[in-house]
Amino acid sequence: MRTVCLWIVLCLVAAADEGMWLFNRPPAELLEERYGYKLEQDWLDHLRESSVRFNTGGSGSFVSSEGLILTNHHVGAGIIAALSTAEEDLIQDGFVAATREAERPCRDLELNVLVSIRDVTDEVEAVVSGDGDEAVMQRRAAMAKLEAVPEGKRDRLRRDVVTLYKGGAYHLYEYRRYTDVRLVMAPESAVAAFGGDADNFEYPRYCLDFCLFRAYEDGKPARVEHFLKWGASGAQDGELVFVSGHPGSTNRALTHAQVKRMRDVRTPYSLERLKRREVLLSAWSARDLENRRRAKGRLIGTQNGRKALDGRLAGLLDPGFMAGHLQAEQAFRERLSEVDGGEEAEAAFIEIEALMERQQKDGFRGALIGGGDGFGCDLFWLARDLVVAARERQKPDAERRSGFREADRVSLELGLFSEDPIYRNLNELLLGDSLTFFCEQLGSDDPTVVQVLAGRSPQARAAELVAGCKLDQVELRKRLYEGGMEAIQASTDPMIAMARALDEETELLQERWERDNEALKQAHARIAAARFAMEGESVYPDATFSLRLSFGKVSGIEDGDIPFNTNFGGLFAREEAQQSTPPFNLPERWKTAAVEGSVALNFISTNDITGGNSGSPVVNGAGELVGLIFDANLDGLTNDVAYDERRARAVSVDAAGILHSLDAVYQADHLVAELRGSGD
Amino acid sequence: MRTVCLWIVLCLVAAADEGMWLFNRPPAELLEERYGYKLEQDWLDHLRESSVRFNTGGSGSFVSSEGLILTNHHVGAGIIAALSTAEEDLIQDGFVAATREAERPCRDLELNVLVSIRDVTDEVEAVVSGDGDEAVMQRRAAMAKLEAVPEGKRDRLRRDVVTLYKGGAYHLYEYRRYTDVRLVMAPESAVAAFGGDADNFEYPRYCLDFCLFRAYEDGKPARVEHFLKWGASGAQDGELVFVSGHPGSTNRALTHAQVKRMRDVRTPYSLERLKRREVLLSAWSARDLENRRRAKGRLIGTQNGRKALDGRLAGLLDPGFMAGHLQAEQAFRERLSEVDGGEEAEAAFIEIEALMERQQKDGFRGALIGGGDGFGCDLFWLARDLVVAARERQKPDAERRSGFREADRVSLELGLFSEDPIYRNLNELLLGDSLTFFCEQLGSDDPTVVQVLAGRSPQARAAELVAGCKLDQVELRKRLYEGGMEAIQASTDPMIAMARALDEETELLQERWERDNEALKQAHARIAAARFAMEGESVYPDATFSLRLSFGKVSGIEDGDIPFNTNFGGLFAREEAQQSTPPFNLPERWKTAAVEGSVALNFISTNDITGGNSGSPVVNGAGELVGLIFDANLDGLTNDVAYDERRARAVSVDAAGILHSLDAVYQADHLVAELRGSGD
Repeated sequence: MRTVCLWIVLCLVAAADEGMWLFNRPPAELLEERYGYKLEQDWLDHLRESSVRFNTGGSGSFVSSEGLILTNHHVGAGIIAALSTAEEDLIQDGFVAATREAERPCRDLELNVLVSIRDVTDEVEAVVSGDGDEAVMQRRAAMAKLEAVPEGKRDRLRRDVVTLYKGGAYHLYEYRRYTDVRLVMAPESAVAAFGGDADNFEYPRYCLDFCLFRAYEDGKPARVEHFLKWGASGAQDGELVFVSGHPGSTNRALTHAQVKRMRDVRTPYSLERLKRREVLLSAWSARDLENRRRAKGRLIGTQNGRKALDGRLAGLLDPGFMAGHLQAEQAFRERLSEVDGGEEAEAAFIEIEALMERQQKDGFRGALIGGGDGFGCDLFWLARDLVVAARERQKPDAERRSGFREADRVSLELGLFSEDPIYRNLNELLLGDSLTFFCEQLGSDDPTVVQVLAGRSPQARAAELVAGCKLDQVELRKRLYEGGMEAIQASTDPMIAMARALDEETELLQERWERDNEALKQAHARIAAARFAMEGESVYPDATFSLRLSFGKVSGIEDGDIPFNTNFGGLFAREEAQQSTPPFNLPERWKTAAVEGSVALNFISTNDITGGNSGSPVVNGAGELVGLIFDANLDGLTNDVAYDERRARAVSVDAAGILHSLDAVYQADHLVAELRGSGD
Repeated sequence: MRTVCLWIVLCLVAAADEGMWLFNRPPAELLEERYGYKLEQDWLDHLRESSVRFNTGGSGSFVSSEGLILTNHHVGAGIIAALSTAEEDLIQDGFVAATREAERPCRDLELNVLVSIRDVTDEVEAVVSGDGDEAVMQRRAAMAKLEAVPEGKRDRLRRDVVTLYKGGAYHLYEYRRYTDVRLVMAPESAVAAFGGDADNFEYPRYCLDFCLFRAYEDGKPARVEHFLKWGASGAQDGELVFVSGHPGSTNRALTHAQVKRMRDVRTPYSLERLKRREVLLSAWSARDLENRRRAKGRLIGTQNGRKALDGRLAGLLDPGFMAGHLQAEQAFRERLSEVDGGEEAEAAFIEIEALMERQQKDGFRGALIGGGDGFGCDLFWLARDLVVAARERQKPDAERRSGFREADRVSLELGLFSEDPIYRNLNELLLGDSLTFFCEQLGSDDPTVVQVLAGRSPQARAAELVAGCKLDQVELRKRLYEGGMEAIQASTDPMIAMARALDEETELLQERWERDNEALKQAHARIAAARFAMEGESVYPDATFSLRLSFGKVSGIEDGDIPFNTNFGGLFAREEAQQSTPPFNLPERWKTAAVEGSVALNFISTNDITGGNSGSPVVNGAGELVGLIFDANLDGLTNDVAYDERRARAVSVDAAGILHSLDAVYQADHLVAELRGSGD
């Protein structure tokens, strides 16, 4: 089994091919040193502006001058599922738009392209003078002011203050925003996710996990200056490659006490919820084909999360790993007396431990009562957002909670007024199970539980709430939103009434949680300052779903003799060995297509990635797109807390395989031409 | 949603078609009153001696004079799976023995037929004079003495002291024991469990959930005097039917405090473990077809348990149900002052609450450390049984733990020396996950956890233990068993070493748990005595996996308009609606067979049953076999704590459907003749 080198633990000082680097603090020296590669600013700027962030939680890139965007099928799956119906299942059957007119407008999709970064740490810290609630409000106001976008520009411009180094720095990211996005091409899910949950995070692998969207402006394909050239021959063994994408979150700067809590409390708790949800959705899906279609996206997401956390927990439960983590922290703390701010940093370690204790008590209850994921129920989720929006919009903009400011209006309304279908039976299923969990966790005699259940069993209550709720009507949601607090107070919709009843306690817990979080930020800022003082600029921050650069090389795994890539021949062989049993069943058209077995399908590289990197372009030194990140292997799942170059790998779809499938299987000559045209 | 009549809660006083009656205290008056049916002693004795208990946890019945036995496919599935190999999959492909010689000897199967019952309450209580450890040992010795079987007779005779009314009475059950049992016929699992977990506990239903075994004596088919005549026309709407089988356990005599604990602690905990196991086995099965075959039996069992407990929990979380339960208990307690022993009974309620608190602390840890289910790992299970056997066999017989006495030797050795295949990869998977759970629950710093993991991660430790263990060799197990404590102490097998290391703490916790259990029994005995004084003999005890009689009528459900039976036409219609997607795919030979759509397949009745009743014969007033219990509907899942006649139903395979399938699909003329011959 894998053990982690002690010296790479708490590895904010980069070693090996490690690091999720800021575009404004790129690892130029390291690249020169390790690979003799000279990083050019133009090259970097071009890559940045070719990179796209998906609000569904993934990454992508422009691959033609006419706004064509490449990402993973699994990043687009929720969007594709929402475009599907019982009659036309684009997830199962795939989709190719034969013409521009046939491209399908997507609902609720927002894409962001990073156009500039500015360090605003001093501006933020200058405003925050107090602590407790005062500091929370000061920081919130400072960030709101920086994020504000002039009214006429909000459709196309977005500004986010990104908290880096867990509070050690603040950078202002300005994005170009696209909200008219259309589906161009998606393979069948059976080949996109060949092997399903079974092969997820495994390698060797055979997934054609890509799909194509197109960004539109003013009703026409967006003309973009920056897009990636298609590297038609794909990835080469041993070559240096870069990944430009949006890793969601990592926890490498956590203190040892925080990692222990992650191991002992947070991860097992999350896993319990995920496994419970997986069993619920699997069993419901198995009852009926239409159930299966409706639940598919959520089930895939749940299985993915479960497998990722199971992998992470396995790493955390390795006593050798934890001993190494502790040792690295102790070594750092011993050196604190040598640097400026060292004493404050040492005190911060102690403070963090106390803060966690307090925060946990409120955190679980708050997540449960606020319905964390909206009790898994779209209708409650909408009700809660309407109630919170009504409350927050009564306040001055700068005092509002993140997500409800004027700058967030476009994104907020995109979600609130989505035309996505809402399945009442699935809503009832998920709400019933979530309320059951709610009872189990808080106890049936808890006053809030008693209030929510109103004398019914969890399942009976869920049935009653869903049956009585009319929030599936977009018009009603618009009226409630426009009507503000008065309309919310007057509403008799049972889901609104429940969200209203829970709002006060949720808000109270949220405030307490934020107050502790502010204190945590300040403590981490003190540790980060000491680290900068000790180690200079060679430090990258934990991932924050903002654009990062990682580098590495295309490489198999020596231990285990695992080759660097797979090909279409391997895909067919695996199907045959598993007798075409799902999830190893290829769509019909694949059986008759002239697919060449020797064309590369997937490959692995040492790039340091994590969730959110899905859909990221993989480019070679010349800036050509050679692959598309879609996964990590099992050993890569502990990337969350530490990177291990020996066995952890990023898994990509090969650019050559994508092109070959468009040509040989999907007969999408126009897309091949568009991609190749870009490659000339 | 269902609510439960208040007056049937705590329903040991029978009402409606309720009750799992003792064969020596049958509900003769109730049957006369409700159905005008006169229960005859001969009829009852014949039914009792035709009934069979399976050590796999189910029921069955003799259906021919030559020892042919009918039970559920899911009761036999573990046995059938053990007879299967990667080359010959009897679970998937089914099996029909064309001749007696082709019948397949089963491993590790023990069948019991109840030949007599004697009330030994006075004999047991006369011996128990003390409390605490002393009482535990006194009761254990008294029971061991009663259960003792002369050496030469152990192969064929078994005696169990059954604890009834949670300690209110003790009856000695004497069984005829069969251990040479052979598989005669099994349908394909796809039709036996048509609809799989998806349709489990649902109704309408279409499962051909039966299989046939034969008992042998001295190498020849057993000649049995008592067997059930085949009612070839099956179950008729509205008719009175009886079920004779072995309900596993119910909890209707629990105090309200105990039911609350079941709702708040025990059931959620069990569900968490089941869902975790289900996800583990599902994901592993999906990776490879051979994995799927190996894990199938465990996965089905896990899903079944999960669905049953989810259903039970849903009932317990109904505030109306709990209020009714409390009210019934309060009404009973208010009347206690009117009867002899009432004061002691009232004190017992208080005592039980305190005992539970104490018992819980030890119980969870004990189950975890003892490995409750052997960490899900056959190899550890064997190691632990070898260690415990060595320890217990050093003591005088009367002082040994149940399961390790001379009277238990046949059953114990059957398990220890089983030739069943042990799959190392499946063992490693389950042990790895169990050790992970072990860490999560007890904490990574717990001294026992540290000792067990020996510096490895749970998965690495599991891999190491399984790789080093040689207990898959039956010969080695025999040597260790024969060699007693000396051989166990000298063994260097890593699994034996782990079981040895855990033995002391496990034993300590087990002893404490038993001491509290003895006190619980004494408390429940005082409550039962008061109940007898108040309500006389019209009280049946909670289920104890001993033979019980239940009565009811064949009946659809008015609310919801659900018909009393389904037929083969419905089976084919459901397959078509679900496009033959597993678990709704019929085996090939079903597509071409001359199956008559109008022949009955499944039916429902109001009989009061629970887990363990699977495989029980359903007989009509004339004593003919008209059906085969295989399930309860979802509303029947709260049978555990209360019976509800309005919506709870037992689900059976119709005798007519079984006969038709043997004739039309399996061309098993010889079996049809044997069954029909019995029916002439």
